[in-house]
Amino acid sequence: MTLHPGLASVAGLIGTWRGEGDGEYPTIDSFRYSEEIAFTDVGKPFLHYLQRTWSPAGAPMHTETGYLRVVDGSTAEFVLAQPTGQTELAEGALEATAEGFTCFLASRILNSASAKHVDSTQRRLELAGDILTTHFAMAAVGVQMTHHLKSVLRRV
Amino acid sequence: MTLHPGLASVAGLIGTWRGEGDGEYPTIDSFRYSEEIAFTDVGKPFLHYLQRTWSPAGAPMHTETGYLRVVDGSTAEFVLAQPTGQTELAEGALEATAEGFTCFLASRILNSASAKHVDSTQRRLELAGDILTTHFAMAAVGVQMTHHLKSVLRRV
Repeated sequence: MTLHPGLASVAGLIGTWRGEGDGEYPTIDSFRYSEEIAFTDVGKPFLHYLQRTWSPAGAPMHTETGYLRVVDGSTAEFVLAQPTGQTELAEGALEATAEGFTCFLASRILNSASAKHVDSTQRRLELAGDILTTHFAMAAVGVQMTHHLKSVLRRV
Repeated sequence: MTLHPGLASVAGLIGTWRGEGDGEYPTIDSFRYSEEIAFTDVGKPFLHYLQRTWSPAGAPMHTETGYLRVVDGSTAEFVLAQPTGQTELAEGALEATAEGFTCFLASRILNSASAKHVDSTQRRLELAGDILTTHFAMAAVGVQMTHHLKSVLRRV
């Protein structure tokens, strides 16, 4: 299956990534977690995305899923569904680096009627060869935009 | 793995469904398609959802993914990501029937900067034993709310 040419700038993401992360937020205790992310080519001009995290004891924690779209090789549109009741539409610039890219995404959010309220989020993805670093900040439950998660993943 | 008790009213959805559908919309030619849907229990108070469709010739067409949440057994929150650049938050009432349920969902949409514009959508899911019927309408690209898709799927 030939990769859609519009995905060339993110081709290095395709595959499965595993590693560890640290979480913090003013309303909760800090925590560590294990994370697995898969970006999958389905033969279309987008990648399928599935993320899962576990506690250090191995209990399932978060999961999220969606699609990564790329416009003109330099703009990312990350379309996400959250099982916590939010949709998240994260858009921003892709900047090529020596071994991959850096991508900063700012999000618009929809909250379901029963969800804890999230106002907006920011993400940064840094791909450098076989290392993928993720950063996630959110404004939620009355707290202004604040760093929440960072993980460092290796290609498996 | 024991099903989360909050999912009892949608337990009959868990599994894989396959069948055929018909699509129409004022701006396009009508079409037939094959569809597969999987609702998966991951041990949490929501189901993971993945849908794929194919042309009669077997070419991949649409796919969408997300999570089904249930509130108090009688309200569904269907949190969806579309690779066409939309997030879709579809919420509505679950009504029990003799062999399953009927669920009518009205959606709020976010469109990415490069997406064709979708204003809103409506979905109806009808579960009756081993038959799942789906209906999808949308207001998009200047057309008011109009029926777009219907599929009839059987449990596999």
